[in-house]
Amino acid sequence: MPVAMLKIPENQVAGHQAGNGKLGPLVDDSGRFYKPLQGDDRGSHEVSFYTSFSQDMTIPDQARGFFPVFHGTELVEASDGSGLKPHLVLEDLTVGRVNPSIMDIKIGSRTWPPESPEDYIAKCMKKDRATSSIFLGFRFSGLQFHSNNELGFWKPQRKAVQGLSAEEVKLVLRNFVSSNTSTGLESKPDCAFASVVLGGSTGILSQLLELKEWFEDQTTYHFYSCSIHIMYEKQLALEGKDPRAEIKLIDFAHVVEGKGVLDHNFLGGLCSLIKIIKHVLKASDECRTNGLLKDAQKNQDIAEN
Amino acid sequence: MPVAMLKIPENQVAGHQAGNGKLGPLVDDSGRFYKPLQGDDRGSHEVSFYTSFSQDMTIPDQARGFFPVFHGTELVEASDGSGLKPHLVLEDLTVGRVNPSIMDIKIGSRTWPPESPEDYIAKCMKKDRATSSIFLGFRFSGLQFHSNNELGFWKPQRKAVQGLSAEEVKLVLRNFVSSNTSTGLESKPDCAFASVVLGGSTGILSQLLELKEWFEDQTTYHFYSCSIHIMYEKQLALEGKDPRAEIKLIDFAHVVEGKGVLDHNFLGGLCSLIKIIKHVLKASDECRTNGLLKDAQKNQDIAEN
Repeated sequence: MPVAMLKIPENQVAGHQAGNGKLGPLVDDSGRFYKPLQGDDRGSHEVSFYTSFSQDMTIPDQARGFFPVFHGTELVEASDGSGLKPHLVLEDLTVGRVNPSIMDIKIGSRTWPPESPEDYIAKCMKKDRATSSIFLGFRFSGLQFHSNNELGFWKPQRKAVQGLSAEEVKLVLRNFVSSNTSTGLESKPDCAFASVVLGGSTGILSQLLELKEWFEDQTTYHFYSCSIHIMYEKQLALEGKDPRAEIKLIDFAHVVEGKGVLDHNFLGGLCSLIKIIKHVLKASDECRTNGLLKDAQKNQDIAEN
Repeated sequence: MPVAMLKIPENQVAGHQAGNGKLGPLVDDSGRFYKPLQGDDRGSHEVSFYTSFSQDMTIPDQARGFFPVFHGTELVEASDGSGLKPHLVLEDLTVGRVNPSIMDIKIGSRTWPPESPEDYIAKCMKKDRATSSIFLGFRFSGLQFHSNNELGFWKPQRKAVQGLSAEEVKLVLRNFVSSNTSTGLESKPDCAFASVVLGGSTGILSQLLELKEWFEDQTTYHFYSCSIHIMYEKQLALEGKDPRAEIKLIDFAHVVEGKGVLDHNFLGGLCSLIKIIKHVLKASDECRTNGLLKDAQKNQDIAEN
C-alpha cells in the first residue's frame, strides 16, 4: 500500500535523482522524504549520524532546528524497480512549498575527512581544486530559481555552477533574490527581494549567523561534504508576504567525530559564504538607496522645471 | 660599522636559525630584526607582502598592531659568512623582554596557496597530514617555556610538538601558563597564570578574538603558512605584575591576494585555537574554584573538629 503513494520529488536540486528507472529519493504525501541507502558504506554512515544525532541530548534546540527531522529507516520499493530496499526516512524539506527557489551549497574547502583512503582523498582533492571549494570555501552543488509561472525554473547543470569565481557567485546570489530573472542568469538582476529574503531577523543571513554561533561552539561532529539547503518562495515575495526563507543542513554521509575540536573546515567555509551574502545585501541596499535618491532627484527636477 | 653590532637572536623558536656558520636572522641593539631573504622566491614574496601591507591605507590600526613593524630591506653581512646579503628589516618582537615564554603556532589546516606548483602542494599536504594541521587547523612550530632562572627554558624539538593531539595541545597550553613547570612537560601543571596570561581584557584570548574580528572582515590577503607568535614573561607574573602577554603574526612568504574572499583557511584554524584556549581557561578557572572550595571545606572541617 505505501509503495503506491511514493513519488519522485519535484524540488530536488542535487544528488542522485530517481526517474528513468534510476535509483533516487522518493517522497510521500505526508511530508516524508525516502533516501535510498547508498550501496557502499555511505548509506550506513548517514544512518549512524542521524541515529547518533537524534539521540544526542547535548544539541541545543536551535541547532537541531537546522537539521531535517529523522524518522528512522524503512524498507520501501526502490525507484529503480530493484525491489524493497532500505531507505532513510526524513522530513521532506519542500513539502507545502509552492515553486521554491533553492540553492544547495556544499560547505568547506576540503570535502574529505582526515582518515579517508588515499584514492578517495585524491578524488576529492581533484574536485575541490577544480571547483570553487578550495578558493571560496564552498561550491554550488545544485540550483533551481523560479522565474514565473509561464517560464518555470532556471535549473542549471551542476557542472556549470560548481566552479564559479567570487564575482560570479555574487551574481548568482543577486539573481536568486531578483524579480526580473528569466530562465537564465540575468546580468542586471534587480535584487528586489534581497532585503526580505537575505536580510531581517528571519532572513537567510540571520539564520546563517545563528548556525555559525553553533559551529563556534560544537566539537562533537565534523561535517565533511555536507550542504546548506537554502530556500524561499518568490511568489510570496511578489505578493508582499513573508517569503518563508529557510536554511537546513543536508547530506551527512561523511560526518566524523569531532573529538573535542571545532569543525574549522565547515566554519571557515560558512564564514566565507556569510561574508559574500553580507556583500550582496549591502550592495543591494546601496543600489536601492541610490535608486530612491535618483527618483527623488528626478521628481525634484520635474517639479523645478 | 653596523655589521659588528649584529648578533644571533636569543629568543627565536622556529624557522632557519643562525649559528655554527649557518644562514639565519640577526638582531641589533636598537630593536631591529634582520631576516635574510631566502634564495628562492619566498624572500622576495615576503618583501612584496610587507611593502604592500605597509602602504595599504585600508588596514585598520588595530589590525596593523598585530604585525611586526617593517623597516624596509638592507644589505648586511650574512650570518653564514657569505658576505653582504639582502635582509628584511623588521621590529625585533622580543626586544626588552626578559626570558619570554613563547609559542609559535602555524595557523590553517592547509599551508599551501591554491595556485602552487604540484610538487609544492604534495610536500605541504604530506606535512599537513603528518602533523596536527589537518585535524586541529593549526600546529606548533616552535616553543620555549621559561622554567626559572636556574633551569632556564624548556625548548622541545619542533618535530616533537608538530603532531600533537587536541588533549596534548591542551596540556602544552596549561604548561605554558603554569608556575610549576621544569625543563619538560609537567603532567599536572598548576595553571597559576592562566587567568592573567590567557584571560582578561589584555590577555591572549582577547587579542585572538580581536584578530578574529579582522579576519571575519578582511578579504585582501590570504595568509598561508603564517604563524601566530604568542609571548609573555613568567617572571613578571610571579611578581604579580602585568606579564606583558602579546600576540603577533609572523612569516608572510606564502601570502596571496584574497580577491574579495575571506581567508577561511586561516580564520577556521584561528577559531579552533581560540576554542581550545577557551577550554583551558575555563578548566583552570573551575580548577581554581574547586581548589578554593576545597580549602574552604578544609578550614571549616578544622574549625568544626
